[in-house]
Amino acid sequence: MVTVAENKYGKSRVRLVKVRRKDGWHDLHEWTVEVLLQGDFDSCFVAGDNSKILPTDTMKNTVYSLARDSSADCMEDFGKELAEFFLDHNPQVSGADISISEKMWDHLKSNGHPQPTTFIQSGGEIQTATITRTRAGNLTVTSGFADLVVMKTAKSAFEGYVQDSLTTLQPSQDRLLGTALSAKWTYGGTLVDFAAFRAQAREILLTAFAEHDSKSVQHTLYAMGKAVLEQLPEMDDIELTMPNKHYLLVDLSRFGQDNPNEIFVPIDEPHGTIQARLRRQG
Amino acid sequence: MVTVAENKYGKSRVRLVKVRRKDGWHDLHEWTVEVLLQGDFDSCFVAGDNSKILPTDTMKNTVYSLARDSSADCMEDFGKELAEFFLDHNPQVSGADISISEKMWDHLKSNGHPQPTTFIQSGGEIQTATITRTRAGNLTVTSGFADLVVMKTAKSAFEGYVQDSLTTLQPSQDRLLGTALSAKWTYGGTLVDFAAFRAQAREILLTAFAEHDSKSVQHTLYAMGKAVLEQLPEMDDIELTMPNKHYLLVDLSRFGQDNPNEIFVPIDEPHGTIQARLRRQG
Amino acid sequence: MVTVAENKYGKSRVRLVKVRRKDGWHDLHEWTVEVLLQGDFDSCFVAGDNSKILPTDTMKNTVYSLARDSSADCMEDFGKELAEFFLDHNPQVSGADISISEKMWDHLKSNGHPQPTTFIQSGGEIQTATITRTRAGNLTVTSGFADLVVMKTAKSAFEGYVQDSLTTLQPSQDRLLGTALSAKWTYGGTLVDFAAFRAQAREILLTAFAEHDSKSVQHTLYAMGKAVLEQLPEMDDIELTMPNKHYLLVDLSRFGQDNPNEIFVPIDEPHGTIQARLRRQG
Amino acid sequence: MVTVAENKYGKSRVRLVKVRRKDGWHDLHEWTVEVLLQGDFDSCFVAGDNSKILPTDTMKNTVYSLARDSSADCMEDFGKELAEFFLDHNPQVSGADISISEKMWDHLKSNGHPQPTTFIQSGGEIQTATITRTRAGNLTVTSGFADLVVMKTAKSAFEGYVQDSLTTLQPSQDRLLGTALSAKWTYGGTLVDFAAFRAQAREILLTAFAEHDSKSVQHTLYAMGKAVLEQLPEMDDIELTMPNKHYLLVDLSRFGQDNPNEIFVPIDEPHGTIQARLRRQG
Repeated sequence: MVTVAENKYGKSRVRLVKVRRKDGWHDLHEWTVEVLLQGDFDSCFVAGDNSKILPTDTMKNTVYSLARDSSADCMEDFGKELAEFFLDHNPQVSGADISISEKMWDHLKSNGHPQPTTFIQSGGEIQTATITRTRAGNLTVTSGFADLVVMKTAKSAFEGYVQDSLTTLQPSQDRLLGTALSAKWTYGGTLVDFAAFRAQAREILLTAFAEHDSKSVQHTLYAMGKAVLEQLPEMDDIELTMPNKHYLLVDLSRFGQDNPNEIFVPIDEPHGTIQARLRRQG
Repeated sequence: MVTVAENKYGKSRVRLVKVRRKDGWHDLHEWTVEVLLQGDFDSCFVAGDNSKILPTDTMKNTVYSLARDSSADCMEDFGKELAEFFLDHNPQVSGADISISEKMWDHLKSNGHPQPTTFIQSGGEIQTATITRTRAGNLTVTSGFADLVVMKTAKSAFEGYVQDSLTTLQPSQDRLLGTALSAKWTYGGTLVDFAAFRAQAREILLTAFAEHDSKSVQHTLYAMGKAVLEQLPEMDDIELTMPNKHYLLVDLSRFGQDNPNEIFVPIDEPHGTIQARLRRQG
Repeated sequence: MVTVAENKYGKSRVRLVKVRRKDGWHDLHEWTVEVLLQGDFDSCFVAGDNSKILPTDTMKNTVYSLARDSSADCMEDFGKELAEFFLDHNPQVSGADISISEKMWDHLKSNGHPQPTTFIQSGGEIQTATITRTRAGNLTVTSGFADLVVMKTAKSAFEGYVQDSLTTLQPSQDRLLGTALSAKWTYGGTLVDFAAFRAQAREILLTAFAEHDSKSVQHTLYAMGKAVLEQLPEMDDIELTMPNKHYLLVDLSRFGQDNPNEIFVPIDEPHGTIQARLRRQG
Repeated sequence: MVTVAENKYGKSRVRLVKVRRKDGWHDLHEWTVEVLLQGDFDSCFVAGDNSKILPTDTMKNTVYSLARDSSADCMEDFGKELAEFFLDHNPQVSGADISISEKMWDHLKSNGHPQPTTFIQSGGEIQTATITRTRAGNLTVTSGFADLVVMKTAKSAFEGYVQDSLTTLQPSQDRLLGTALSAKWTYGGTLVDFAAFRAQAREILLTAFAEHDSKSVQHTLYAMGKAVLEQLPEMDDIELTMPNKHYLLVDLSRFGQDNPNEIFVPIDEPHGTIQARLRRQG
């Protein structure tokens, strides 16, 4: 006999722009929402009985309808409202995962001033939040960002590593260190202003990245996570992903030229992947 | 104090083409390999001590060197060799994950015959395999495929679902059902010919997709998983992901025209997501 | 004074699936249409007078409405109907460009038989057509395809090229030759069955690619174009684009291994670009 | 007989990072270069004679070698050097096209100060330049940018357009206007500081976008082009491409809610395309 061991279903890529207007000044959020529900849907799988199925189209409608009524200004608060709504209205649902990502829109600056009703999309970086809620009452809020592309052109070395018969990498005391940083953190019990907290976390992580005297990507990742966990006690743990996007020094000696750390080839593949979850101990 | 709760690192997107030649007939595999290692790397994170770090560049070299010596014809066997090599040569490593994906190249057919040394890339579908091995001796092999785009234009309905104040979807007895199928399965103890098994699993899944009288995506997903688990006893469980890629019937009544299930708009977003893991019981 | 030297506007990425049913057998086309119109729109640009503007939303509606009424089975014929419609109904329009691309859907084969109502998307290759019509009566039909990914593992060399102080490439008598072929051709006066002609052109081009004893990408491009122009007299000229997607032989001598043309690294960037338009002379 | 009517070939996606260091302050450019050459290559196509072929691999080497020696700080000046080099060293070449695009890297700001050796990639926007030079001595320099994503949430209407039997769009006095702006301009005889000029052009275009009381995308496009051509006399003409990236007001009346221009759905397809080339008249 074949059974359904795990299942979830929902709607992905529900896109939403919300504009707020006050005294001629506009604010703008662009969110992409994913709703995934879990529960007892065995009769649907096995027998084609749809009587417990909330259509994913209705989930999409729910996102828009709640967005209109909601006073939430940040993804985390809106995600909590959505998760609660789906659990309250659907007894067959045992858990709801809401994932939201936000594209960054800033007020356009022209002639040195921010334009009140014109926006520019700044960066490929996206802000992320995931809210997981179960009928039993467990609530987890994870915040973070992804694809924040940064590079150090100084204070980055990589030496003293394992040497074996397949080693061809040359040690370097001064290399380019580039990454597309992703971060995800969870919160302790204390309530936080999610948007302000996010801005602080991002600033601390980037400052640590810039100032660190790096002996490896791992070394810098730890320094960044340590800084943010030490300065923000409301953060419980943090997972950092730092692909090592390589910049190879071009060998110009073949053409009778030197290359004093000046001309590099950026390559997309292969790339290193360095990932760790750090937490405050004791 | 801040500690490293989890970590893995390695090399991603190591690309490889292997050509085999025999009596004027060539065979071709294109693989993209990811190597991720886990282990005791605390001193690297905390103190910048690289003495235990196998550079990801060396991992890349290892992939190419082993590919030359290996007689493995399929991803699963090559992945097992890679995992074993990294554990054997690196006592600081406690576990190795090898993920490989394969682009499909077929012999080009011209004038009705396969050309022995010319290939055509067929489909966006990729074949996948993940091999996880720990120093303690645990070995898990997962095989599958992703992004296999298929569509049913008959035998697909969706009715009888939950109706609430946010419902706008119309029930349908005859809708288009399109998906980009992904599948991942694990194996029981028996040895299998991975490539032949993969071809069988794919055929059974697609036949079930085609023949099923669908009442929902969930209903068809279950029918597919049930068919393959029943026919292939070496398969332990299977996870199927079937995004519901919507095709909306165009409302032509505004222009005085009917639309008897003929003209549809395919949309990429939002899309439904239906995912389940099925297993053989008892 | 600032004037509008050239302008065009329209709707892009209008997506359409058309299903035809006959005796239990279905046929399926998926097209993406772009409509671009030219004409006298100066008052719109300069004065914000929209009285001559056909909204791009209406263009989208027109695509769907005509698709329902049209008996056209191929992009070229449907594109001609669209171009004619926009010129007939909009006196302010002087020219219409209709570009259509088609994703390849084939009937799924299972148990050796094609399934009558189930389809599989085969290949990333797309079929293309562009129809340009002016009020003065000029009509140009261009057909082709793009992103047809093929590779030769034999009969491909590259030697005897210019050597200078910046040359590092080694000559090769036996290299991999891979490309993502794009082709576009125009027609002479004779009427053709566009779909059948397209299939013939594709077959001739691919057979020439497979059989050619290549001394360079240019050499093979010419052989392909020559073959198709000689065999299909209705073709007036053909433009072929063949990026040289490099497969680099891995240097394994560093690890004490040989590499007899067996292990290659495919790279996406940089790539060679070779493009030419060939025509029948006299 | 089949002849080569037109041909060009070269190397695409040659990527390059150049780091300049001065007194502890670093500057960084990331360029992607394409080299395309034209000339008399008939013997290569027809007879497989490679004696006139400069390998595209050598073109790549040339980009890196010249980058090291060049003092050019902007793409336009570096492109001119490259074009000149290829014509000077290859008598068989009649014309060279150099296209360069630049990713935007800014000094990371932390604690309110720019970090001297740490960079952040700002925006998906890319800067572009194309340099075309013929042996006869013609030189054209085109500068621009692409994919600059901006949005107006006020001062944008669209009314008074053509109404016909296929019209379903509702007129709007207050809609969102979003686009991914691309611009390309050419220069008159006067020499300019390309980088400073580019910054000025970008600022003028964006200010006009923000301040314009828009009656249509065309209307705003013209206002932007007019502003920049009037304020920068060295600009000869400008081509602007403004896809109309639609934001649809969600109909919440079905759920008993109003939607006072607050909740929108951004959609990627279909989109409007509006393109025009403007020039200064006599």
